[in-house]
Amino acid sequence: MDLHPSLSYYSDIELLKKELSKFLKHADSVVVVCDTNTVEYCYPLLAEMPQLKDAPIIEIEPGEASKCIEFAEHLWREFLDLNLSRKSLVINLGGGVVGDLGGFCASTYKRGIPFIHIPTTNLAMTDAALGGKTGINLGFTKNVIGTFSLPLSTLICPVFLNTLPKAEMVDGFAESIKHALIADSEFWEVLSSSWSPELDDIPNTAWIRRSAEIKSEIVSQDPLENGLRTILNFGHTIGHAIEAVCLEEENKISHGLAIIMGMIAEMHLSVIKGICNEEAVIFPIKKLDSWYKPVWKGWMTADRLIDFIMKDKKNSHGVIKMSLLRAIGEYPVITEINPEEIVRAIEKAKVASA
Amino acid sequence: MDLHPSLSYYSDIELLKKELSKFLKHADSVVVVCDTNTVEYCYPLLAEMPQLKDAPIIEIEPGEASKCIEFAEHLWREFLDLNLSRKSLVINLGGGVVGDLGGFCASTYKRGIPFIHIPTTNLAMTDAALGGKTGINLGFTKNVIGTFSLPLSTLICPVFLNTLPKAEMVDGFAESIKHALIADSEFWEVLSSSWSPELDDIPNTAWIRRSAEIKSEIVSQDPLENGLRTILNFGHTIGHAIEAVCLEEENKISHGLAIIMGMIAEMHLSVIKGICNEEAVIFPIKKLDSWYKPVWKGWMTADRLIDFIMKDKKNSHGVIKMSLLRAIGEYPVITEINPEEIVRAIEKAKVASA
Repeated sequence: MDLHPSLSYYSDIELLKKELSKFLKHADSVVVVCDTNTVEYCYPLLAEMPQLKDAPIIEIEPGEASKCIEFAEHLWREFLDLNLSRKSLVINLGGGVVGDLGGFCASTYKRGIPFIHIPTTNLAMTDAALGGKTGINLGFTKNVIGTFSLPLSTLICPVFLNTLPKAEMVDGFAESIKHALIADSEFWEVLSSSWSPELDDIPNTAWIRRSAEIKSEIVSQDPLENGLRTILNFGHTIGHAIEAVCLEEENKISHGLAIIMGMIAEMHLSVIKGICNEEAVIFPIKKLDSWYKPVWKGWMTADRLIDFIMKDKKNSHGVIKMSLLRAIGEYPVITEINPEEIVRAIEKAKVASA
Repeated sequence: MDLHPSLSYYSDIELLKKELSKFLKHADSVVVVCDTNTVEYCYPLLAEMPQLKDAPIIEIEPGEASKCIEFAEHLWREFLDLNLSRKSLVINLGGGVVGDLGGFCASTYKRGIPFIHIPTTNLAMTDAALGGKTGINLGFTKNVIGTFSLPLSTLICPVFLNTLPKAEMVDGFAESIKHALIADSEFWEVLSSSWSPELDDIPNTAWIRRSAEIKSEIVSQDPLENGLRTILNFGHTIGHAIEAVCLEEENKISHGLAIIMGMIAEMHLSVIKGICNEEAVIFPIKKLDSWYKPVWKGWMTADRLIDFIMKDKKNSHGVIKMSLLRAIGEYPVITEINPEEIVRAIEKAKVASA
């Protein structure tokens, strides 16, 4: 079933393969971009397709550090050595890192060649592989180099999740929680009353599908992020800054945890700005805190976070803008923030989690 | 006067400055990308504009070697250090190298920020700065990494040509000759009867303007190069291969001369393919030969050229395609070529120039 012109969901891997083979039939040649995990655990599910028999595979290291200029250059050189043409097809089989990097390189090689995302993590299925953003990091600044470039299609099949470590699944679920909070109060009620990171068989596939739908609905209304789409940044302005500071400290933090911490701080900010009643966010803040147990390190100072926030892509004319909740399940509003308000919000978040 | 929605021609620098100031008024901040020549000879013509008073300048080395990943990274890092936002403005003041590199970096920084081209060479005015192609080279393969991304505007003013060395002007005029050959037989007649590289005051500005118009007309009909636009590659398939082989040999060749040699070889190819009467191209081949005096080196073997031609962006399914002349002043046709035909055409070109 099509959720979006370029997004399809398959409960069965055979159906995904059938759809993929249609694209392969029209491709001049094909290359598969994997990381060292997905080549081992996910690619075997596709490898027997006759059209993939001799397909070259480009492997990258898993992890955010691969979203860099050096790996972009590696992919571009491989594409060139393989003599890929504008009628070739790049298949990005992996999580957000593979999709963002593979998408960026495909969208800039020969000024853009076709690519398909087959996300293998719930994070990529519900977020990274949807909406046509590609990108790499520059130093500690995330996704600052990239393009808006739609894949031919994003093919989602939850079967790949069987290969995903539990911790990574829980981590990636932070984006689904965000989608519930910003767009669907019923979805939030279901999650908050029935989900727990300790449970084994969830996040279940219905939730992944609903989360992908929400993301897709929002981006399809504003593909180039001229307005509405920036609401998806809820939790990410402060969350990305937390990730950047952790990178500087060489103190690894998962994307999901950083975003959870960002959402908590930004819910406090909503209250400080008078955009949202305190009562509305007390329960969600408590839930996020109990689910993910964030730890605010002493070196995560407001000043250091603000330094990175100033570089955020949403800003202009030196004014900080954030996507802040008005109410649970309602689209956020984009609001101007001054640094002093951020200081107070982070202080409140630290106290709450202490 | 507008030649194209995003292209304006000014005989007077004051008019250009007036137009530029409109864009600067709406920009959050501005940066000027120059090479070490244009910062010295061209930027002073603009520097007194109040809005450019404190504008930072990023300088690159002149020459094709700067269109590389290392300089792209340099620009991206400078943009980030300057905290450029999506409402900032990048001004590319220079020839094709500055425009291609600056345009590529602007179009991929924060997934695309606005830029303006102010071309300072006749080559850039009539070709590189028009049509929204950006790009860098990878190894010896030209423009293989890039985007389709239109500048806010391309502001053309012939005053900058006063600063251009004569040899470079003659070299860049190869693209104007190409435009005449593929689209305007009257223009070709004027050029072939009145131009000579020895003349001082030409290529004159009327010719530059006509040449820019032709390019603009063609690309506006097919901005993403799905069809018609590829006719502009006349002379460039073999020409780019000549440039690549010369790079490998560390034997510098100008872009213009390589394209002239490419056009000569591809006119022979038109005859070999039976697309064009031999009589139609005898005179143009003779003219190009006498104007630019190409020398075919022993190491410019057909085999080496074909190796690069195989990597051309126009190809698919391993089939070589070229834009070949049917008649002087008429849009070329895109034609499949086999390597043996290329061998014969290059042989003929070598004999003719010997």
